[in-house]
Amino acid sequence: MSLNLQTHTEHFTNPLYLESGRILEPYDITYETYGTLNDDKSNVVVICHALTGSHHCAGLYENENKPGWWDGLIGPNKAIDTNRFFVICTNVIGSCFGSTGPMSTMHPHHEPYRYKFPVVTIKDMIKAQRILFDRLDIHRVHAIVGGSMGGMQALQFAIHYPNFANKIVAMATTYATQPWAIAFNKVASESILKDPDFQQGYYDPEVIKEQGLSGMAVGRMAGHISFLSHESMKTKFGREYKRTDGLYELFGKFQVESYLEYNGYNFTKWFDPLSYLYITKAINIFDLARGFDSLEEAMKKVQAELHLVSFSNDLLFKSSEMRELHEVLNKLENKNHHYMEVASDYGHDAFLVELDKFEDYVKDVLNG
Amino acid sequence: MSLNLQTHTEHFTNPLYLESGRILEPYDITYETYGTLNDDKSNVVVICHALTGSHHCAGLYENENKPGWWDGLIGPNKAIDTNRFFVICTNVIGSCFGSTGPMSTMHPHHEPYRYKFPVVTIKDMIKAQRILFDRLDIHRVHAIVGGSMGGMQALQFAIHYPNFANKIVAMATTYATQPWAIAFNKVASESILKDPDFQQGYYDPEVIKEQGLSGMAVGRMAGHISFLSHESMKTKFGREYKRTDGLYELFGKFQVESYLEYNGYNFTKWFDPLSYLYITKAINIFDLARGFDSLEEAMKKVQAELHLVSFSNDLLFKSSEMRELHEVLNKLENKNHHYMEVASDYGHDAFLVELDKFEDYVKDVLNG
Repeated sequence: MSLNLQTHTEHFTNPLYLESGRILEPYDITYETYGTLNDDKSNVVVICHALTGSHHCAGLYENENKPGWWDGLIGPNKAIDTNRFFVICTNVIGSCFGSTGPMSTMHPHHEPYRYKFPVVTIKDMIKAQRILFDRLDIHRVHAIVGGSMGGMQALQFAIHYPNFANKIVAMATTYATQPWAIAFNKVASESILKDPDFQQGYYDPEVIKEQGLSGMAVGRMAGHISFLSHESMKTKFGREYKRTDGLYELFGKFQVESYLEYNGYNFTKWFDPLSYLYITKAINIFDLARGFDSLEEAMKKVQAELHLVSFSNDLLFKSSEMRELHEVLNKLENKNHHYMEVASDYGHDAFLVELDKFEDYVKDVLNG
Repeated sequence: MSLNLQTHTEHFTNPLYLESGRILEPYDITYETYGTLNDDKSNVVVICHALTGSHHCAGLYENENKPGWWDGLIGPNKAIDTNRFFVICTNVIGSCFGSTGPMSTMHPHHEPYRYKFPVVTIKDMIKAQRILFDRLDIHRVHAIVGGSMGGMQALQFAIHYPNFANKIVAMATTYATQPWAIAFNKVASESILKDPDFQQGYYDPEVIKEQGLSGMAVGRMAGHISFLSHESMKTKFGREYKRTDGLYELFGKFQVESYLEYNGYNFTKWFDPLSYLYITKAINIFDLARGFDSLEEAMKKVQAELHLVSFSNDLLFKSSEMRELHEVLNKLENKNHHYMEVASDYGHDAFLVELDKFEDYVKDVLNG
């Protein structure tokens, strides 16, 4: 069977009431589906994407070189089997791949929001998704699976829409963003803001796509450090030096430097700087306990079968953070929760790269 | 007894032959001494500084708020007791506190070197120090102690001047800089280079001191992440948010963000950007095995009593790197080497901050 990839954008005219007290109105949500919805709508699996991810988590568009970001996991006969499940992944609000974000036109003006865009939270992101699912007449799903910021969304679903999903898998994530991760985001935001080509937010997006934005490239380089680990960098690059460069040339480069440069500058061709600022803000202020007396009180709301998956050498969201959450759940009654630590030297990006280490687990959860 | 702090600068007119094949001529070395040299010159302790350190490692100048960077360790009756030892710390060449660096005047011109300054290595740094000590008629010292890049110098002394020191203590350092550390330096160098106020190296240093250099500030923020750890950040900042800022304000800040901002921008008032580029280059290309068939061959040269000290949660130069070096030494005959891992959650900066955890060890080494 084919993947049956479909991409849609839905337009909403009712206001979206945000956690901040502000509203977003109107707004669009772009999403992608794979597989086929069954008659009783019992086969829906929701995928939630990370900071710079998108709704395009599987399959290959025409003229595309690289498939969706979790293509190894999602498809016919894969762990998230599209022969069986109807998979939906939405682009979060605040992002830049079709859903409303800071560079979307601010109704009724014809100019982008830019800084007039409201700060959105992880809770706002899942609220918008929930409204989309309502429109699609999907009121309960089989599972929600997400990694990194996608894992934050999955956990937020577990608390705020406790009856919406049967099963939830939150990977490589945390219960509240810790200062280490906030610090990396700070390097990126400061670097973007101080780049004169950012023009204090009044840049021309086409110019940036063409010419790059070094401030965002530098920020992304810092990001890439946080996605890896000492060990994965050692394996990937060692102390290999570019053959064409002299060791005693000030600008001679190690391979790891070339890697960061390439990925940093390439990133500015496909991601929007204001979206980066807004989404990192959402990540920074993510805290499952907000609005509750404690994390324990928050977790009492959980009804779904909850799976926490961490990676042993994840330096961005440490395994210990998932263990802390697991221990909070252990104290509560009537919870069906599981914790698995995947042994991996790769670092945070293991959830995108080392699929072979957890795909069976995900498969068993979905089929079990 | 008093600290007897003295600061001097020596001028050298003979060329310094560098590892790159280039020469530095003439050059200055600024250094500081504490305590008193005894008659048979047997009480000299050399201190080696880190990336942004200087010769000023102890004591307080007039009108200075903060004492030298290892003041807690060095002084009368302290671990490195200046009642007993004559302590010397030199500013490395390439730096910006008196020794010749990229912003020094390039003889016979009246302009700074800037990019005409040669790349210097850790080996070059210690060679210059050795020449200074010769002029001071000091041909053998009791001990050399250094942390981070200072530890690299200490190890390089152990190999290249095997009979120069009785004892060597290398802390929070490595045998060859690994890609994780190079990656952090890359974020900083890229950020500096792309800042228009850096003017492609042709900046006015006075203007930068007054107005700051956001590119270097951002780079330093990344540096500060690498100096800390998840745990120290959690203890220091948690998720504390600035009281005057709204949680849903895009530019509202967590305390960790304020800390990075303050330290990042303050740094540009006292450190030179070209020195930063040159010294991080020296760190990146540091490799004890260079010029030898293997690290083992290099370590065969060691004659001094060698102490390797690492910090359990150092994320910049991991404990495992010192252990690897220790294991190499274990394979060799007739070596007097010791390895100690200091249990610490602090991160790399523990060697500057948690003196109480290793001062007794240093004291015992020096007195033993």
